[in-house]
Amino acid sequence: MLYLDVLASYPLLNESQDALLVACREHFANPSANHILGEAARAKVEAVRITIAETIGALPSEIIFTSGATESNNLVLKSTVNTTLASGLIPHIITSTIEHNCILEICAYLECIGCEVTYLPPSQGGLITVDSVLKAIKPNTVLVSVMHVNNELGTVNNIEKIGEICFDNGIKFHTDAAQSYLKLPIDVDDLNVDFLSISAHKIGGIKGIGAVYIRDSRNTQLQPLIHGAGQELGLRGGTLATPLIASFGAAVQHFPTYYKAETMNEHKQLFLEELIRNRVNYQVNGSGDILPLMANISFLNIDIPALIRDTSNKYSLSQGSACSSGSIESSHVLQALSIDRETASNTLRISFPSDIKKSQLLELASDIASFKR
Amino acid sequence: MLYLDVLASYPLLNESQDALLVACREHFANPSANHILGEAARAKVEAVRITIAETIGALPSEIIFTSGATESNNLVLKSTVNTTLASGLIPHIITSTIEHNCILEICAYLECIGCEVTYLPPSQGGLITVDSVLKAIKPNTVLVSVMHVNNELGTVNNIEKIGEICFDNGIKFHTDAAQSYLKLPIDVDDLNVDFLSISAHKIGGIKGIGAVYIRDSRNTQLQPLIHGAGQELGLRGGTLATPLIASFGAAVQHFPTYYKAETMNEHKQLFLEELIRNRVNYQVNGSGDILPLMANISFLNIDIPALIRDTSNKYSLSQGSACSSGSIESSHVLQALSIDRETASNTLRISFPSDIKKSQLLELASDIASFKR
Repeated sequence: MLYLDVLASYPLLNESQDALLVACREHFANPSANHILGEAARAKVEAVRITIAETIGALPSEIIFTSGATESNNLVLKSTVNTTLASGLIPHIITSTIEHNCILEICAYLECIGCEVTYLPPSQGGLITVDSVLKAIKPNTVLVSVMHVNNELGTVNNIEKIGEICFDNGIKFHTDAAQSYLKLPIDVDDLNVDFLSISAHKIGGIKGIGAVYIRDSRNTQLQPLIHGAGQELGLRGGTLATPLIASFGAAVQHFPTYYKAETMNEHKQLFLEELIRNRVNYQVNGSGDILPLMANISFLNIDIPALIRDTSNKYSLSQGSACSSGSIESSHVLQALSIDRETASNTLRISFPSDIKKSQLLELASDIASFKR
Repeated sequence: MLYLDVLASYPLLNESQDALLVACREHFANPSANHILGEAARAKVEAVRITIAETIGALPSEIIFTSGATESNNLVLKSTVNTTLASGLIPHIITSTIEHNCILEICAYLECIGCEVTYLPPSQGGLITVDSVLKAIKPNTVLVSVMHVNNELGTVNNIEKIGEICFDNGIKFHTDAAQSYLKLPIDVDDLNVDFLSISAHKIGGIKGIGAVYIRDSRNTQLQPLIHGAGQELGLRGGTLATPLIASFGAAVQHFPTYYKAETMNEHKQLFLEELIRNRVNYQVNGSGDILPLMANISFLNIDIPALIRDTSNKYSLSQGSACSSGSIESSHVLQALSIDRETASNTLRISFPSDIKKSQLLELASDIASFKR
């Protein structure tokens, strides 16, 4: 079985699994407990916090562990809005129509409780332009939330410039970096971000753990989303899951950093050329910089549903993102690019593991071609 | 090192670790993905949901996975209050002064946003009486939240009767069962609960996963705490953490059910008698039914801080609960029992692993006695 869905979840790295097991054995105590075993668990947690902070140019205290990027996104958006509402003002948020479903769901909820939301449409190439953000700013804009890399298209937004605009206008800036973390360079100061969401299972760590970067966390006015017994500067309650955090830390240290950009781009090029050689008619969705390890491709003369069905024991192929693949609706991202429903249903998001071989890519192209209509 | 803090976190069971590893290897795909690997992960999740549901007499659809009991508590209390506030009414919640810190933190927050909260004091024995709940009910009471077993004292509240009163008065009833699940029999119908919080790491599963039972979940008006891409009936967003859920399921199947109540009670009795034989002067805090595997003991002629310090390489001993053991304040639970600060600082919550030996208990009693003042 060739797994071609690493953007949905990256297989656990051996190092992440080893770290998980060591922590299960040695750091099983509650990291809040005041005995030696508790202290050992706490030390492990703090070591990983430093590791993660270093990868994005943050202070360790600015890294708050959560259950994943979804929770991180909820914490940032809801807390920002609730704080503003509590002060009697009507908050305004700027986001985009091609954010991860979770951001869109959060924003729909925030609208219900009195927040104004502007949803920016993407350019034809699938990007959120700096200019559109600038034009959407209102006197009551409190937060801009634009993802770093789109999870379906792989398009890379100009976070640095958007962050600059936010900084100039005194607006907080959040980016969901679940799909870009360790796949593209990130420095929270260079990118001008105040909040950044990441997740372990997108980089070969275990599921159920993630983090949120919160600039100047010790002085933040954010309310926790999950109140608890004072853990994580009071910003996130619940027993710290040491084994998961250890696994996260090992993934950060061992994930093929920046995902072998050159090799992966060469691989992708080879695959696309092989499709042409096999007379497959297709269009790549999204333009500009695209994450090297993936491609979103609409096939114009291939019966994709049949391909998925008949090769299901050979390939793990995904139409759109995992989070919306259970839905019969076509992807909201492809809709935003005005791609019609039929084309959308003939579209694959293919994302490659770092150890994929050229021969596997050639075979995949040839297998796709055999489903010509 | 003898670990005497299983109420803070139970060591991972071998079966839970095996299940974790199998799932990491075989079920690493995103359970929302529509390919065969995604389906396999989804099937694993659903099997565990059934396993858990069966242990408490619930329907599988009524089990929603969360990151742990803290998140479960946040979901229930905040959603209930927010729903009432949205309808223009002022909600009233009844809880107790000896709940887990997380409930108290949530309630303090809810008071800030306009909710009324009544905090019931415990009886001298550390119980929340049925009568006190009845008397606290007001026309706008929407929720009663009383823990099943107190995490510091081990006292067992009469949840069944409290639930009956709530049912009779049309009030929703939530209980935090993190410390009682699989240690005492639970049937959600017998206990008349609408919401119940549980956590894997208290029963030998991995940290970072838990669940909340939500009666009639498909028709609930609860808003999610964590909005996402529609997972868990839309009640909890975020990629389902299959390996953690698999570990949770194995713990449920292999945790020494009802914690060998008889043996553990005998063990505890032996330990307490050995203390007396060694002329240790003490009082056991909490009365009535007490969880068999633990004791909360104030030592009147022992220097407990010295004991903890000097035996730190031999025993993992905890003053109070892990969640508040980092604090220099004396436990809010002991304060609620009017135990003075000095006595409180000479108090241990000792909780025993199920495989503890009699000889170890006798040695512990003797070691404690050697710190007589």
